[in-house]
Amino acid sequence: MRTDEQALVDRLPTLAQEEDKYKVREMLENVRPEDLADAIQRSELEIGLGVLRKLDAETAAYVLVELPDETSRALVAEMPDTTVAHYLDILPMDDALGLRDSLSPERFEALLHVIPDQDAQEIRRLLSYPEDSAGQFMTEDFVMVSPLDTMADVLDLIRNTNDEEFETVNYIYVLSEDRHLLGLLTLKRVIRAQPNSLARDVMVEDIITVPATMPEEEVARTLARYGFSAVPVLDERGRMLGIVTADDAQQILEEAQTEDVLMLGGVTGDAENYMSLSLFELVKRRLPWLVVLFIAEFFTGSVLRYYLGRDADADPSASLAVIAKLQLFVPLLIGAGGNAGSQVTTTITRALALGDVRSRDWFRVIRREFSVAALIGVTLGLIGMARVSLPVVGWSQPLYLSLTVGFALPCIIIWAASVGSILPMAAKRLGIDPAVMSAPFISTFVDATGLIIYFEVARRVMAGYGIQF
Amino acid sequence: MRTDEQALVDRLPTLAQEEDKYKVREMLENVRPEDLADAIQRSELEIGLGVLRKLDAETAAYVLVELPDETSRALVAEMPDTTVAHYLDILPMDDALGLRDSLSPERFEALLHVIPDQDAQEIRRLLSYPEDSAGQFMTEDFVMVSPLDTMADVLDLIRNTNDEEFETVNYIYVLSEDRHLLGLLTLKRVIRAQPNSLARDVMVEDIITVPATMPEEEVARTLARYGFSAVPVLDERGRMLGIVTADDAQQILEEAQTEDVLMLGGVTGDAENYMSLSLFELVKRRLPWLVVLFIAEFFTGSVLRYYLGRDADADPSASLAVIAKLQLFVPLLIGAGGNAGSQVTTTITRALALGDVRSRDWFRVIRREFSVAALIGVTLGLIGMARVSLPVVGWSQPLYLSLTVGFALPCIIIWAASVGSILPMAAKRLGIDPAVMSAPFISTFVDATGLIIYFEVARRVMAGYGIQF
Repeated sequence: MRTDEQALVDRLPTLAQEEDKYKVREMLENVRPEDLADAIQRSELEIGLGVLRKLDAETAAYVLVELPDETSRALVAEMPDTTVAHYLDILPMDDALGLRDSLSPERFEALLHVIPDQDAQEIRRLLSYPEDSAGQFMTEDFVMVSPLDTMADVLDLIRNTNDEEFETVNYIYVLSEDRHLLGLLTLKRVIRAQPNSLARDVMVEDIITVPATMPEEEVARTLARYGFSAVPVLDERGRMLGIVTADDAQQILEEAQTEDVLMLGGVTGDAENYMSLSLFELVKRRLPWLVVLFIAEFFTGSVLRYYLGRDADADPSASLAVIAKLQLFVPLLIGAGGNAGSQVTTTITRALALGDVRSRDWFRVIRREFSVAALIGVTLGLIGMARVSLPVVGWSQPLYLSLTVGFALPCIIIWAASVGSILPMAAKRLGIDPAVMSAPFISTFVDATGLIIYFEVARRVMAGYGIQF
Repeated sequence: MRTDEQALVDRLPTLAQEEDKYKVREMLENVRPEDLADAIQRSELEIGLGVLRKLDAETAAYVLVELPDETSRALVAEMPDTTVAHYLDILPMDDALGLRDSLSPERFEALLHVIPDQDAQEIRRLLSYPEDSAGQFMTEDFVMVSPLDTMADVLDLIRNTNDEEFETVNYIYVLSEDRHLLGLLTLKRVIRAQPNSLARDVMVEDIITVPATMPEEEVARTLARYGFSAVPVLDERGRMLGIVTADDAQQILEEAQTEDVLMLGGVTGDAENYMSLSLFELVKRRLPWLVVLFIAEFFTGSVLRYYLGRDADADPSASLAVIAKLQLFVPLLIGAGGNAGSQVTTTITRALALGDVRSRDWFRVIRREFSVAALIGVTLGLIGMARVSLPVVGWSQPLYLSLTVGFALPCIIIWAASVGSILPMAAKRLGIDPAVMSAPFISTFVDATGLIIYFEVARRVMAGYGIQF
């Protein structure tokens, strides 16, 4: 059953104090690593350390990989090399590799000399693939048989392996001598088939595979798309290297999505548990973008100065009153533009991430967004005009003001929508993550440019009334 | 292998024209439903319809469930009841239920009378559970055995079932006579154990289950958290009703995340393929929020009028020049506040969705966000002051202006951070989806309130210089 988290958190301090480690292990027997990791992550470092020390190496290792990097980094730093090496040794290769993020490169390198050579070599092999590629998080522990093995052989093979040997036995891969993937057997098929029938006659031959160099997020999407629980990874010469399993893929997708969401909010950095991030980390993830946007926003000041600023120093003139009035609607108009832009950029970025939209669809997308923006812009324009001109419910301002607002709004919103749809697709084309075109980015962009639209519209409308500014 | 999408899209029109349906089936033999659905979704309705008509009912049914609702709705509308009923009959119950979203309630109800009673009853049973709950998307097709069955019995059972009968045979559930879940067998365990050993001796007893009423997103998170490929669903009396499988869970998570992302961008509505949405649908998803925010933004006008507006109509006074100067920095300050607020609300909302943060953590979160905001605010404040006051690189404005900007920025950003962190957590507490506190929402909120802070700071600073406004 699932343990109540808070209850577990409260119990940890006592467990950390407990002398008799077997008592601790017994008390935590039915607690799953994921739940224990959660509780440790929400407790003081010392407490977590105290508990881990009392667990058997295997449980401890599995808890460690479930912890957010920041936390496990802090814990591992307190552990002797022998312990960590032991963990690396116990864990499946893909998890062991995950633990690497919690270690300094030097220490990890040093540990590779401590653990059994075979494991060290496998880790080195996996590390030789590009960062965040299929090769780096696949496991080499899959069941492989030869095309001439019988179903009875296959079942024997599965019977006589120990539990840790394979990540999954539900898929059995049929490989040629030179490790080319010939076909796939599901355990179900093996059981159904005649015991003496040959693998090559039972296997399914039409298999979806991924190259070892494919980016992890793409691999994860492939698994999710077809609902597979594992996908074979091939090297450039078509030899099977390993498998990527759905649970790893799930985690990768989740992290990728977290990074996209945060980036859309103007926050950069890897997916990390919020609570495990230091204040410094939090500032580091936000300040750079904010400063860039802040400096970009200076441009709004320049625009205002260009259109109005000069007069401010000159002798107060009639136009000054008009200017003051125009100013009243600045936040309203750039706000609406920013919000409309955020909607569009968020929609398009997500559609790109899910593959619903490809960059080659740019024309269809812009056509759609243009029409949508026109409809929305006119609606807001009418509401705006009413608010500005009407007495009682409105501000009963002169007609030329409400006309300005009414005309400026559709223009600004159509502009915002164009920017919000073109920029993400352009980014995708250029191989930049479209999520960089975040809501804050678009609204900042639209603030300054929207002002120009507003005042240009104003000038033309006012000119009609013989008002200069 | 995976088919090249564009190539397939280009081939569809010819296939739709093709007279001989067997030729079409043969040509599409190695194309997976997911890929075919993708291609159909990117083609004209008639073409998609033409292709589906030529496929065997089973393939067609599976393609249909892979299509976005909007598209399948349009296609199903063109199909005779007999065909659709046949599809409902073929599909696993959870998929059949999914097809329901593409049918009018009346038509679906009518179809239930056409399909076999047993299926109709199962669908009605599933429908009796709350909307979007585990009960609605579980499948009742799981392998169940009695505690006294031997491993040999279990293997026979699996051998003698046809392919469609069970969603998965990798998990075998041991149920008591009254359908209480006693334990779990993995197919691997069954093969490993002695053929004559009893289920009750081999089974694992510590199992994580979910109630039929649990919201689908929570069920999906549970599966993802523990990396299960299926989880048993129990009724309120602890009897096992069915299982939810990981591939369904994956899809639910993806849709839930899409809805969150869009909502954070101020777009409401269910996850749907962007390209399959009509213009009207797109407007419907965006306009309501925009109008609400737009009207809320009117408040900025009132604030400006309160602080400045009145003077605009009065005789131009010295303070008018000051006011004009103050106005220059309005977009800069509210922009910075909005961006900082978006960062915070996005971070917190995501952390809440992932369970990294619970509403009971509110105090820790606010303390953290306050310190972060203070650091960021002071940094931007200094940059702002420099820009305002410095000659050449800046606008060489009088000191009282740069002081105003320098003091106002930290206040506004701390305010934005507090709002951006408190609102999502409050929403969560109140059972509202925190994602409603979208970036546009927060920035609109901060626009008006930020202005008040700005002018209040300005008044105090100016007062120090004997300037009234």
